[in-house]
Formats: sequence, structure tokens, C-alpha cells
Amino acid sequence: MTIKIIVVGRLKEKSYSDRIKKYIKWVSNDIKIDIIYIKDSQSKKIEDQITKLSKINFFNICLSEEGDSLSSEEFSNLLFNNNQDIAFFIGGPNGHTKKSFNESDKILSLSAMTLPHEMATLILIEQLFRALSIKKGTRYHRI
Amino acid sequence: MTIKIIVVGRLKEKSYSDRIKKYIKWVSNDIKIDIIYIKDSQSKKIEDQITKLSKINFFNICLSEEGDSLSSEEFSNLLFNNNQDIAFFIGGPNGHTKKSFNESDKILSLSAMTLPHEMATLILIEQLFRALSIKKGTRYHRI
Repeated sequence: MTIKIIVVGRLKEKSYSDRIKKYIKWVSNDIKIDIIYIKDSQSKKIEDQITKLSKINFFNICLSEEGDSLSSEEFSNLLFNNNQDIAFFIGGPNGHTKKSFNESDKILSLSAMTLPHEMATLILIEQLFRALSIKKGTRYHRI
Repeated sequence: MTIKIIVVGRLKEKSYSDRIKKYIKWVSNDIKIDIIYIKDSQSKKIEDQITKLSKINFFNICLSEEGDSLSSEEFSNLLFNNNQDIAFFIGGPNGHTKKSFNESDKILSLSAMTLPHEMATLILIEQLFRALSIKKGTRYHRI
């Protein structure tokens, strides 16, 4: 299974990127995670990516505080019940365009609060690791 | 204004604690933030702390994925509109006891997803910094 995470903005905070790398490594036997960074000035590229990835059957999820909230268990089901590769889109300071929302398959909220894109990336990656642990029934989700 | 954050569990992840220290420093002119760690085995101490802090007029907030969701703006209003010192309680693997929920003034959800206590602490501290920036009208919340 491949998961792409497309983020508007740079990852400046080394402490987050080190932790993100660890989670990516821990899930690598089951999930290949690619993170793609897009410059703020090129945030329209998100729309192009959604169109492109839809064509090769990716399930496209825009992250937004206005989206649906899911528990970690519901998120795990969403990831693994469809047998589809998945792309997550994390917007820049202005969020996503209406076109991106309309063309994506789901709008998901990690929190009702506004999160910096780097923190959203970190939370998402931890939830991917947790989702895999829930699917496999390993201990992580309960510690 | 004093904010106490009482967390069950140790802060093992240095990358998070470095970042947490930065946010604490950035708000230190306006808010004094104390973080108190309680061992997993002594999580009943949370109940004692809630009782003790209520007596000295702290507004006590338990964090739980079952609590109310607030936007960052609503959270900023909650913090600064009451003119009260505030204590946040972050539970361990088993969450909070019923007694803690009953005796606290509010139950707040940072996310519907289950978060590790270290990540919950990091997100909370970033939201405190953001809340102050919203109150002051500085640029941070919009970048």
C-alpha cells in the first residue's frame, strides 16, 4: 500500500522531521509513505495532484479543520477497508481551494483547532502508525 | 496568568520537549506555564490535584477525545475571558476517572483521535501560544 502526503510549506522544524522519519520507518514493511512538499507560492499544484492521483485510483483526502472528525479506530477502518492507495493533502496558510474540496474523496479534520502544517504532518503520521497497530491488534494503541 | 499542565506519564521524546520549552519561553511575558509530570502508577493524584486547584480558584480542564471540540478562536476566548488561572489535565493510557471528569470545569478534546500524551502536550502548548497570538492580534495565527 502506498500513501502519499502532499504538504504546502517547508518542513523547517528538525525535531518534527526526525520523529516523522521514525514513524515512516516503523510502518515501512506494510505501508510505503512518500511526503511531497509544495512551495506556498505553488499551492495551486494541489488541485493538479488531486486530478492526477484520482486518475490512477488514489483515494484523495484533504485535511481541514472543517472536515469530518474520526476516532483512531474509524480512521484505521477508512485506511484499510478500501484496498486503495491514499493521498493526503495538507494545505498552506489559506487552506484548500473549493475545487480541491470538490474533487477530493473526503475532507478529514485532525482537530477543530488550526494546526501548523508541520504539526499536522506529525499528527497524521502518528495516526497512520496507530491505524496500522489497530489493524494488526498490536499493543501500541493501548499504551 | 498561570497555567498548569498536569500530565500522566514521562516526557521521553527530547524533540518534543525542546519544542515545548520554546513555546513556554515565547509566552513567558504573558503566561507562566508549569508542567507537572505524574507517574502512570500514581494517576489517582490527578483527582487530588483537581480538588486542590479548585480550592484556589483554578479553572480545571480535563483533556479527553470525548470532550468538546473548540476552534482556536473559541479556545483563545475560553482562556482569556474568565480572568482565572487554568489547569489542564492530560491522562495516561486509561484516560481520566469519572471523578476527575465530574470535578473538572470542562472536558476539552484536542482531537477525536487518540493522541500519545507527549503529542497532546505539544499540541496544547502550541495552542496556548496561538491563543495568545489571537488575543493580541499578532500575525502568527494567520501564517
